[in-house]
Amino acid sequence: MSETAPKTNPGRFFEDFALGEQIVHATPRTVTGGDVSLYTALYGPRFAVQSSDDFAKALGYPAAPVDDLLVFHIVFGKTVPDISLNAVANLGYADGRFLRPVFPGDTLSTTSKVIGLKQTSSGDAGIVYVRSIGRNQHGDAVLSYVRWVLVRKRAPGTPAHAEHVPEVPKAVPAAELGGACPPIALSAYDEALAGSPYRWGDYAKGERIDHVDGMTVEEAEHQLATRLYQNTAKVHFDAHAAKESRFGMRLIYGGHVISLARALSFNGLGNAFQIAAINGGRHVAPLFAGDTVYAWSEVIESAELPGRSDVGALRLRLVATKNQPCGEHPLRAGEGYDPSVILDFDYWALLPR
Amino acid sequence: MSETAPKTNPGRFFEDFALGEQIVHATPRTVTGGDVSLYTALYGPRFAVQSSDDFAKALGYPAAPVDDLLVFHIVFGKTVPDISLNAVANLGYADGRFLRPVFPGDTLSTTSKVIGLKQTSSGDAGIVYVRSIGRNQHGDAVLSYVRWVLVRKRAPGTPAHAEHVPEVPKAVPAAELGGACPPIALSAYDEALAGSPYRWGDYAKGERIDHVDGMTVEEAEHQLATRLYQNTAKVHFDAHAAKESRFGMRLIYGGHVISLARALSFNGLGNAFQIAAINGGRHVAPLFAGDTVYAWSEVIESAELPGRSDVGALRLRLVATKNQPCGEHPLRAGEGYDPSVILDFDYWALLPR
Amino acid sequence: MSETAPKTNPGRFFEDFALGEQIVHATPRTVTGGDVSLYTALYGPRFAVQSSDDFAKALGYPAAPVDDLLVFHIVFGKTVPDISLNAVANLGYADGRFLRPVFPGDTLSTTSKVIGLKQTSSGDAGIVYVRSIGRNQHGDAVLSYVRWVLVRKRAPGTPAHAEHVPEVPKAVPAAELGGACPPIALSAYDEALAGSPYRWGDYAKGERIDHVDGMTVEEAEHQLATRLYQNTAKVHFDAHAAKESRFGMRLIYGGHVISLARALSFNGLGNAFQIAAINGGRHVAPLFAGDTVYAWSEVIESAELPGRSDVGALRLRLVATKNQPCGEHPLRAGEGYDPSVILDFDYWALLPR
Repeated sequence: MSETAPKTNPGRFFEDFALGEQIVHATPRTVTGGDVSLYTALYGPRFAVQSSDDFAKALGYPAAPVDDLLVFHIVFGKTVPDISLNAVANLGYADGRFLRPVFPGDTLSTTSKVIGLKQTSSGDAGIVYVRSIGRNQHGDAVLSYVRWVLVRKRAPGTPAHAEHVPEVPKAVPAAELGGACPPIALSAYDEALAGSPYRWGDYAKGERIDHVDGMTVEEAEHQLATRLYQNTAKVHFDAHAAKESRFGMRLIYGGHVISLARALSFNGLGNAFQIAAINGGRHVAPLFAGDTVYAWSEVIESAELPGRSDVGALRLRLVATKNQPCGEHPLRAGEGYDPSVILDFDYWALLPR
Repeated sequence: MSETAPKTNPGRFFEDFALGEQIVHATPRTVTGGDVSLYTALYGPRFAVQSSDDFAKALGYPAAPVDDLLVFHIVFGKTVPDISLNAVANLGYADGRFLRPVFPGDTLSTTSKVIGLKQTSSGDAGIVYVRSIGRNQHGDAVLSYVRWVLVRKRAPGTPAHAEHVPEVPKAVPAAELGGACPPIALSAYDEALAGSPYRWGDYAKGERIDHVDGMTVEEAEHQLATRLYQNTAKVHFDAHAAKESRFGMRLIYGGHVISLARALSFNGLGNAFQIAAINGGRHVAPLFAGDTVYAWSEVIESAELPGRSDVGALRLRLVATKNQPCGEHPLRAGEGYDPSVILDFDYWALLPR
Repeated sequence: MSETAPKTNPGRFFEDFALGEQIVHATPRTVTGGDVSLYTALYGPRFAVQSSDDFAKALGYPAAPVDDLLVFHIVFGKTVPDISLNAVANLGYADGRFLRPVFPGDTLSTTSKVIGLKQTSSGDAGIVYVRSIGRNQHGDAVLSYVRWVLVRKRAPGTPAHAEHVPEVPKAVPAAELGGACPPIALSAYDEALAGSPYRWGDYAKGERIDHVDGMTVEEAEHQLATRLYQNTAKVHFDAHAAKESRFGMRLIYGGHVISLARALSFNGLGNAFQIAAINGGRHVAPLFAGDTVYAWSEVIESAELPGRSDVGALRLRLVATKNQPCGEHPLRAGEGYDPSVILDFDYWALLPR
């Protein structure tokens, strides 16, 4: 790609970010029942609240809410052209809060504020920290999260920004969870329809759950997914360019792995119907088409929500592997991760009490 | 998969079923226009009643009904975690009746009653017969069918259930068809828009129709389909585990084959706009990704519906093959099936008179 | 395929077309939000007007209109069983006019009028020219275009039709554009949300834009697409039959290439939110699964729309290549096309002024 016409988006380089800057991302998106169906076809989630209008209404929702991760992927996708087109690596995310439920018909848009900048010691790249906020058509925040990426500099010689590294919490405090979950009519929560008799109180700190099932990913599937999210990161779509890349093939969007693992986790966590917060996550190793994803979970913490007797929260570590069933809960090997591990994800889920 | 955490679903073994038991299956599902679009993208059906709200309304429907087989797949998918997770084989289904139309916005759920049990002579498995009923959000039955599966025993030594084999009709009586088809305004039935000039009276018993066209199946397609139906049978998704299986690769959901063959049958049966009943079906041989499906039909019987002058019924044998066009109507070879045959399906279709 | 049952559609041969004949095509189709989601998943378009109800409403639309090319593919798909089932080649299309916006819930149907016939000198085939018109449920034309195809004769000896070759304009006159675009509230056009600061006046005749990004196509993707459009051309679906064909494999629907190139063109033409007319197009070379599509555009002409100060038109040449990035704007090589070029497409786009 020798020359790029000036009207195309070259992406921002490290020098182009300014601390405190607000970035309005393009392409607002009305979420529809079609997106929900595609999400179901891509991952096979079975949480009853998101699957059935009638189940959701009985609990107190106006309709079945859109899966939290579908919201995340759409909100996140919009940031790619402005934040990470020239990213060398996605380093992390934290303090992800689901603040309001999203329903089909809502229109999502995203803004990001640059909250941190730190040039690398080699001087040819820098870490950009942003807080991204997804809003609905009323301007209400539905999701807020911090993300940091390593972005190339346009020219290594450019003077560095003043270094500023923001503080991010290791986990969202339990007291701040629940904004996206209306008060739940517990008496209407039908365990048989939900598919699990285990409620919040049935899970104990330290408990490990092998989710048993596996799911193989095809190129067409992750491409459909990533385009659905209007995520333009070229590593996911362009097999021709990928031939020259480090891996020699297309990389699967990390969010695809999270959604697969979350859908698999239904088997063992069937009442963990909502993701209330994303505390952090590491994409330990890449996933490629043809690989089979398995998952297991560990209960890190169990917490009440102040003032709420309807739902409780579990802080969960969700680990995904490739081509390795999780009966032995693979995680560490020596100093690092077990070679089968691809995702180490830390989130808060809500369950009925 | 050495150990399974106790909160995951191990599936039922033969010992776990009790005659007369009612099972409420998980995950009610609101069917949407998104599901209909995906169904169209997966199979390419062209029956005008299901494709066009306006065509359907002119006939007397409140809107385009959801394709009968999409209803079947969703209702069926819910039974898998409870009935057939430990199935050795799907042996058959019968007496399938479409009782009410389903429209986008309806929520489907499924219950099953155990109506028969029969241990095998070897003592390590048994046949479980269930009648499964799919209902909409009003509690009205939309589909009812009998299915029997061979299920492993947890321990070969467990004493056998008292044997009970239910009687199932070879075919649903024509007099009991039509519940899912409102009275049709025949004068509004536009043959040009429907794509065929042949009505019920134009088909004769014994007539054979080669549906000519072929459709190749990709892994991504059948995986998307089966997840859309929230069918969790792991043989369809897990290429890693499948390597150790009898076939060494993922098996395509039998319902996918039925839907492909039904969509292909439009070419020759363009006015057979509704499936009124499923009399039975045999999945003669497995289908794998990369195979091309062809189909042909034979008119087994033609029947009037008592009290209805708008529509008539054809009992059809729908035969699907793989990698073999059906100009010669392949079916038998010696004692068994022609090696190309994968499906031998017996159903009642409704056509305008 | 030795014999074909008489009730299947054998397609029309050249002899079967009569000048002036009107053909009503089968299978009216209600377009839904599900179709829009699938279109997004298949190509990843990011034009804000089609992506967001709220963005569209702010401009003056009642809701987000359906992507023009999705309308084209659905309208076109209906013509295949009647026009091109026995086509040897799709020779061209012209004078394509988008006349009214289409919204989810609208039902599309298509009629074609035979406007030209010309037997080939060899006498075994002939060119059929049709004007096809897509209409909504109110009978209003939403799209009109001319297409010509080379169709086989049933028998070479049949006497030729009187030759009649219609005149088609090289391009739709700018003065006749804009029917599908309501008056736009320019002050509400948010460039940040639209993703580009470049409006109509910022583009100059002769300007070339490399759209930079590439998109690899999988078999499952183009099959899903073509079935979604209920396009029955068997070359797209039948790998078994394709083995004996000229290319030995499935061909990707030409419209799939147009949609990919159009979606890629967002990067550089982000405000070219609507296709007002298709002047013509050549599918220079076939595309196969596994290939990666790139695209570039050239501004052929810039035109005002009489009486409208809200939007202006750009006549664009959209060139797609396979496995060749477009930084050098590949087009010609010697007498013919550069071997990487697969599409040379000529259309009018509307942009805000």
